[in-house]
Parts: sequence; structure tokens; C-alpha cells
Amino acid sequence: MTGICFMKNNSNNDRWVVSVDLPMPSLKDNTADVDRLVRTLEQKLEITGITADLELMRVIPDMLRRWGYSARCVLFSDGVHTTLTGLLDPAPDDIAMGLAVDLGTTRIVTRLIDLESAKTAGETSFENPQTAIGDDILTRIHHASSTEGLEQLHGMIIGGLNNAIRDLCAQAGTDSKNIHAIAVAGNTTMTHLLLKLPPGWIIREPYIPAVNRPGMVKAEALGINANPMARVFLFPNVGSYFGGDLVSGILFSGMHRLKDTAILVDVGTNAEVVLGNRDWLVACAGAAGPALEGGVAQIGSKAGPGVIDTIFIDPKTKKINFDTIGHKPPLGICGSALLDLIAQLFLNGFIDIRGKLVPEKLREKFEQTDGIPQMVVVPAEQSGTGMPLRLTQPDIDNIIRSKAAMYTILDTITSSVGLGMDDITTFFVAGTFGSMINPKSAISIGMLPDLPLTRFKVLGNSSLEGASLMLSSRAPSKEIGSIQSRITYLELNVNQEFMNRFSAAKFLPHTDRSLFPSVPVPEQ
Amino acid sequence: MTGICFMKNNSNNDRWVVSVDLPMPSLKDNTADVDRLVRTLEQKLEITGITADLELMRVIPDMLRRWGYSARCVLFSDGVHTTLTGLLDPAPDDIAMGLAVDLGTTRIVTRLIDLESAKTAGETSFENPQTAIGDDILTRIHHASSTEGLEQLHGMIIGGLNNAIRDLCAQAGTDSKNIHAIAVAGNTTMTHLLLKLPPGWIIREPYIPAVNRPGMVKAEALGINANPMARVFLFPNVGSYFGGDLVSGILFSGMHRLKDTAILVDVGTNAEVVLGNRDWLVACAGAAGPALEGGVAQIGSKAGPGVIDTIFIDPKTKKINFDTIGHKPPLGICGSALLDLIAQLFLNGFIDIRGKLVPEKLREKFEQTDGIPQMVVVPAEQSGTGMPLRLTQPDIDNIIRSKAAMYTILDTITSSVGLGMDDITTFFVAGTFGSMINPKSAISIGMLPDLPLTRFKVLGNSSLEGASLMLSSRAPSKEIGSIQSRITYLELNVNQEFMNRFSAAKFLPHTDRSLFPSVPVPEQ
Repeated sequence: MTGICFMKNNSNNDRWVVSVDLPMPSLKDNTADVDRLVRTLEQKLEITGITADLELMRVIPDMLRRWGYSARCVLFSDGVHTTLTGLLDPAPDDIAMGLAVDLGTTRIVTRLIDLESAKTAGETSFENPQTAIGDDILTRIHHASSTEGLEQLHGMIIGGLNNAIRDLCAQAGTDSKNIHAIAVAGNTTMTHLLLKLPPGWIIREPYIPAVNRPGMVKAEALGINANPMARVFLFPNVGSYFGGDLVSGILFSGMHRLKDTAILVDVGTNAEVVLGNRDWLVACAGAAGPALEGGVAQIGSKAGPGVIDTIFIDPKTKKINFDTIGHKPPLGICGSALLDLIAQLFLNGFIDIRGKLVPEKLREKFEQTDGIPQMVVVPAEQSGTGMPLRLTQPDIDNIIRSKAAMYTILDTITSSVGLGMDDITTFFVAGTFGSMINPKSAISIGMLPDLPLTRFKVLGNSSLEGASLMLSSRAPSKEIGSIQSRITYLELNVNQEFMNRFSAAKFLPHTDRSLFPSVPVPEQ
Repeated sequence: MTGICFMKNNSNNDRWVVSVDLPMPSLKDNTADVDRLVRTLEQKLEITGITADLELMRVIPDMLRRWGYSARCVLFSDGVHTTLTGLLDPAPDDIAMGLAVDLGTTRIVTRLIDLESAKTAGETSFENPQTAIGDDILTRIHHASSTEGLEQLHGMIIGGLNNAIRDLCAQAGTDSKNIHAIAVAGNTTMTHLLLKLPPGWIIREPYIPAVNRPGMVKAEALGINANPMARVFLFPNVGSYFGGDLVSGILFSGMHRLKDTAILVDVGTNAEVVLGNRDWLVACAGAAGPALEGGVAQIGSKAGPGVIDTIFIDPKTKKINFDTIGHKPPLGICGSALLDLIAQLFLNGFIDIRGKLVPEKLREKFEQTDGIPQMVVVPAEQSGTGMPLRLTQPDIDNIIRSKAAMYTILDTITSSVGLGMDDITTFFVAGTFGSMINPKSAISIGMLPDLPLTRFKVLGNSSLEGASLMLSSRAPSKEIGSIQSRITYLELNVNQEFMNRFSAAKFLPHTDRSLFPSVPVPEQ
């Protein structure tokens, strides 16, 4: 497990809530109240340029006198500017909360965090309400080309976030006015739509976002229900196809602080890859195809009751053993189990190195309908649908293309800096789907490189975790900008060599078998 | 004349409007639009941390494309943070204006300035609408102790400023939306009332303002009619009795950049004094009494038609010669002419060194009514009122006390740093009243020290000029904070020696005649 620095840091010294005892004013030291507070904070934190909203300045004199010139200060920073977003009673009755947001295209995950203890006070997720306009980013960008469309898409996220805030606060027994800091990690388009920035140029050559570093914005200005002084920090984008969610993931992985070279892969519809260490970071992103998420294969299904999540072919009996979520009769198969299935089919000789079904091996499991070769994974009598669950040749071809794309992206970025896969000491796997896959299966089919399994570290929702980290400690705010500015983005779409590598990777596990020494040669 | 740097700087290099030509975006350089603009600006100006409002970020992509990635950027800064407050067409059809404000207790003066040429586009002044609540600061502070009272006083200034903006824009044929920057120089209380900050602690020991350095505030947040992105900069206070108007005056005088020691005196009801050079600055303020402004003497009058503004006693004939504004029959005498009159009376032996009327010298001009000695300055037949214009002994006593207070303040502050009056190479006289007085008369009565007349520099409305300077060039924004932080404030009220010095200064020109060698010994 990574995220160690998040768990280890239990001291209060680096939190966003900072206790101060001001020197009492006197004729000899008659500095103004706000200046006295800011000066004390700046000296304590060794920073300069802390600002406060006028609304806060107006109440500071009374607060300080009521509390005997002691207070807990709630701060927030985008790494460039630091703002006082609230002032709390020195006695810890008041609380200050932060909201971490993973602003996904499909799903939005929010986590309420106590800014003083860094403890999670609640978590909730919901489908991105913008899916009502379109599942994919492209449809939404087109919809946003009119002012009304952009306004609508923007309003949908804000509405969703406000519902989540209401629910989280109710659960935690707190009020939205106690939320002083919000950290949002989303891809470039989602960040634009949240901020109501025109996203149109993102998809037109030369793919220019409106803003890469939006910094901090007042929650009030976006219509987000929180403290009137609350700030929203948006993780910066590197470019149109490398968003703040990835920067947040890098932060969480800690790879930007490692001496040895690591790779971070966010596996999803897009494969987003970062390679580097504390000295340099190279990134690229490419379409890996939806096949990897199980969204395309006929029997593919989102995780839910009756969905196969464990599958294994007995090498002796060749029987397909499986289990489903809730141990119910199977209705489909989830993405990670689909990868396991392909790996098992290959290792048992049911598909060949080109991924083609082998009728002689499959025997009664093989069928051909309307000229489409396919195999029965679960016979009708065992199925929860009353129909056999089948895996077709086109489904397999899709997965092979996706895994080939993934490997090619990894191969390309590694070669681009003159490294081999073996030089990668840590292989971080991120993303909701990525976190569920079995690295051994992924290696067997040649989707991930053949590294010792101990080098793989599963990060989970690294975008959310990075945003949480940003709220748990002041240090990351300074690191984020440096991560963003250090990333060299490699444009894959314009790289000719890519197609050659891709062709070589369309075999199981690869044309060059020597790259995968740990994968057993299947029975012929 | 000072303010030289203001007049000399005709180049555009240091203005708040900065032209930029951005490198065109390409696949090789696909930085986001806002980041591209900010990067170019930061490189050109050699600063970091420029921010832009979300509202501006939203329109930047379209603006840049329309203008071929060239633009004129409107910036503003409080010396710590720099903000992009607007973006103009590269062709100079659009204009960006600034508003300089001298926020006086009695009068508010506003000046519209073209931020690109630094030329004045108009000027207007109006009575501070808060005088309806009370003429003096104390009454207003008491009124502001209720939320409604503070709201009312705040609203009065904002209303007054908005009227002035409307008039100035109409005069200049421009729109308030073209105002991007506002620089306000006011005393500590007026600054608090403008910002709706609670002023109550200013007048209670140990005299703590709410804020000394409010920095920049959005004009919109104050309800000021200007560009939605416009920022209001408030000159910082040093303390409760040394406000931003003085800091603005120091900026305009340039004394903080001089090698030799200078003094700056703002002569008014309060005498505010700063002594120093480029290495150190010491300041104090004390009540000089309203007598100096001519508001108290029976024949004293504000400048207007028929008011004596020139007066001279012929040393041979002892005839009082005078002229009035508009050459009309005299109705009263303005403050500066009253000082001239006292000086002339003293030099001609009509009053003695204690300021007492000398009946034997005044002869028929001397009267005594209800036990009050007085003299006829203008006989009834010459007067515009049909009555003689008289100067009473109590009037003279008032003026003597005021001039003594002024000299004592100057004496005290100079001695406090171990200097003599002679060490002062430049003597800046500021303030509306201060700018009208004749230094020679002021020396003759011992109000100002006996320095060569060439050392006196009259600054005019230095508060307004400092604010104008701040809008005419980017450099002052960095100087202002350093001026404020370098000022050591001397609390006069708690200084015991003051009263001894004051007693010695109540003679004409002074008990110690050797301090005023240039003043002729009057006839006995």
C-alpha cells in the first residue's frame, strides 16, 4: 500500500487548521488586528502574502477580543497564494471540514474530511448527472458550445455536488458552513465544465485548454454550498488529455519524490501513463478502448449481484470454475474477471497466440452462429438469464486490441526515455478498474509488462486519494504545481512508431516471447 | 515642484496596461490559453503569481483567438499580489481607466486617469456625504457602533463615489465599465468606513485598527460602479492616527528615496508629520487646532468671492493693504491670509511677542468691547458686510496655540532622532491648507522652522497625487508596502516633554529668538 505519508502524518503541524496565540496589543505594539493575526501566522508558517476576505476582516476584531487573542485559523492555498478561509474558537468546539472530490466523467466521488485531524467523516459517490446529456466527453463538449448548454452542464455538476454535500453533512452531523476547503481532481474537460470555462478548444487541434492552472476559486462564485469564505482548489491540468485527476494520482503515489523510476498507469477507457522519478516526469495518454472496462463484450457487465468476479479454468479437467457477487446465478462478467478469463483461456490453449478461439480444444464449448465463432462460458442451465453466457471472437479481438494498445503505450513511453521495462522499480496501478485487475492475468495476456508481482502497487481511486491528501496536509499544495510543471507530455497520436509496436503487441502475450519469461507456454 | 517622476515617466514600460504578443499555440506548445497569457506576462514583467478572475478566464480563449493572440493586459497590484483586471483589444480603441481618490473626512476628491497614458481625464470633488452624520471623525465612529450606522456611513461614501464616477465618465465620454483600478488614500477611519470595517477600536486605548493593510478588494464587493474585475487598492495605515493618506503623501514626495533627510508636514486640524530619508522614516501626528484653517477666528472664512486672500501692512504708513477673491468688497479672510495678517501685525509691532494687541501702536484700530480687546482690520465703510471686520484677542490666542502646537510637533520629532531643524534639507508642505500658506509668514510667527525658503516644497493635495502616481506606474505598488513597514510611529500624547516645548513655542516667533535669525526684530 502507498499513501503512507497520508497515514503516517498524525501531527497537527502541517494541517490547514493552525492554532495561534497573538501577542496582546498595547501602546507599544499597536499593529492592527488583521495584520497582527497575519504576521503571527506568517512567522509561524514561514510564508508571506497570506490574504483574508473582506468579510472575514470585518469580524476578526470582535472574534480576537472574544477569544483573548487566541484562535484557530483555517487556511488554504493553491501553492502560490494562501488565504485565510475562516477563524475558529481556540477551544475545539468548532470544526473545519474539507471536501475531496474525484470529478469523474462517469462517477463523482466525494469525501468529507476533518481538516484538523485529517480523518474521513464520510464518503459518497453518485453518477455524474451530465450523463443525462451524454455518456462521453465529446457529446458534452458539443453540448457546451452554446452558452445555455455550458450553463446546463455546469449546473448539473454543482447540483450533484450540493446534494452530496447535504448528504455528507447530514451523515456527519455537521453543517455545510463548516466546509472551508474543497479539492477537486478531474480530467481537463470536467474541470472546465465545473468552472464553466469554454471546453470547445480542447478537442480541436492543437488541443488548447482554456486554463491549465485555475488555482483557487471561491466556492460561492461557483454556487457550491459551503462556508462563504471557502475556496475550491482545482488540480491543474497538464494539457487537454492529461488532467488534474492524474496530477492528483501522481501526488498520491509519491512517485515524484522517489529516487528510482516508477510508472503510474490509470487504466480505463483512456490509458493515462506517467513515468519518472524525483528528477523528471514524462506522461502520455492514449485510447485503450472501452473493452478493458468490460463495457463492450456481450457478456461484460458492471459489478453487481450475479456478476462473475472470480473465474478459473482447472488445468487438469479444463472445467471453468467461477463465483459471482452475492453467489447468485451468473448474469454476466465484470471487467477484471474478463481479463482473468482471457488469460485462463490462453494459458489452457482455448485461444491461440493471436487470440483466436481453438475449436479443437474447446470442443462442445465452441459454437458458430451467423458466421461468428464464439464459446459458451456458462451453459444455459447454470446461467441466471436462462441463456448461455457466450464470449464471441469479436469480443476477444476487442480485448486484444485494448491490451495491445495499453502495452504499446507503456512500451513507447519507456523507450522514449531510453529505458527498458525492467528499469521500472515500482508499477503503480490506479483507477477504479485498474485497481481491480489481477496483475498476474494482465501479465499473462501481455497487457502489463512481466515484472515481479511485488513491484505492482494498487492505488485504488488515486484521484480521490490525492485530493484527500491535499486537504490533510499543507505540504502538497506546494508540490502540486511543481509536479504539473515538471511533466513533459508526449503526444502519442502523432508518433508513427506507435503503430509498429502496436502490431507486435497484438499477440498473446507478445510477438517477442522473451519479453514475458514468467508466462508459461500454453499447451498446443 | 516635486512629483517629477510622475511627469517624467512618459514611456509605457511601467504602466498598468501591458501589450503582449503571445507565441501561437501548436502541437509542440499546447499550453492553455490563460496559462500562456500569464506566462508571457510574468516573463515580460519578471514577476510571478499573476492571477485572473474566473469571469475573465471564461472569455480569454475567445478574445485571444479574435485578436490573433495579441492583447493589451490591464493589471493591478497591491505590491504582494498582481491581478489581471481586464483584457483589451491590441488596437488601442478600448481604454482602461483608473480612479484616484483622496478620501478626506470633509472633502473627497476623485481624479479619472487613463491607465495607458497616465493622463488625467477629469477631476471632481464633493463634500464627504458623511458630514450629514457629523463633521468630525469621533461622531461618525460612535454612529458606526451599530451595524445599521456602519452600513449607513459606508453607503454614503459609496453613493458619493458612484455619483462622482458617473459625472467623471460623462465628462470624459467614457463608461464606468472602463474603470479597472481604483486607488484610495484616506485616513484610517475613512478607510475603515469605506470598507465597512468596524472602526470602534481606533479610538479606544491602545488604539488598534481592524486592518492596516487591506490590500486590494473587488470594486464589485464594495458596490462601486466599475468594471466587474476592477480592484480597489487602499493605501495602508501605519496606525489609528496615521493613515493611508499620509503614506500616499510620502510616496508622492519621494522623501523615502532621498539620501538627505526631509520632513513632510500635512497641515490641517491635525498636524501629521513624517521625518526621514531612504534609510528610515519617523512619523507623528498631533492636534494643531482648527485655528490654522481659519475656521475659528470671527472673521475667518473659507475661500470664496469677497474673501481676503492677500494682505500686507505698509511698514511706512502702517496702512493695511489687501485684495479679495474676485476683487469684491471684503466679507472675511481665508486661513492663509490670516497667518499673513498675524505675521504682518507682529513685524509691525501691532502685537507683541506674546501675541497681545498693542493699543498704543494700533491707536484708532484698537477697540475693547465687553472686555474683549480687538482690532479693526477693515473699517465698516470698506467692508462688504457694512460692519467692520475685526480680529479679537481670543482669535489671536487660538492661532498662537495652534502655531505653537505645530512647531512643537516638528521640534519634538526632529529632536527624537537627534537632529536639529537645520539638518532638514527639504521641507515638504502638504494638505489643501498647507499648500496655500506662505512659508515666509509661517516662519515669521514661528510656526515653521527658519529654513531657507528654497528648502520648502509645496505638494498640494499629496494624498490625491500619491494615489494618482500609484495608477500611473507599476513601480509604486512595490514601494508603498515598504514605506508603510519602515515608518516608526511616535506617540505624541504620551510624551511629557511636549508640554515644555509647547510653552516655549507660544511666543512670536519663539522664546529662543536665536532659532529664527531671519525674522526681523519688530519695532517696539
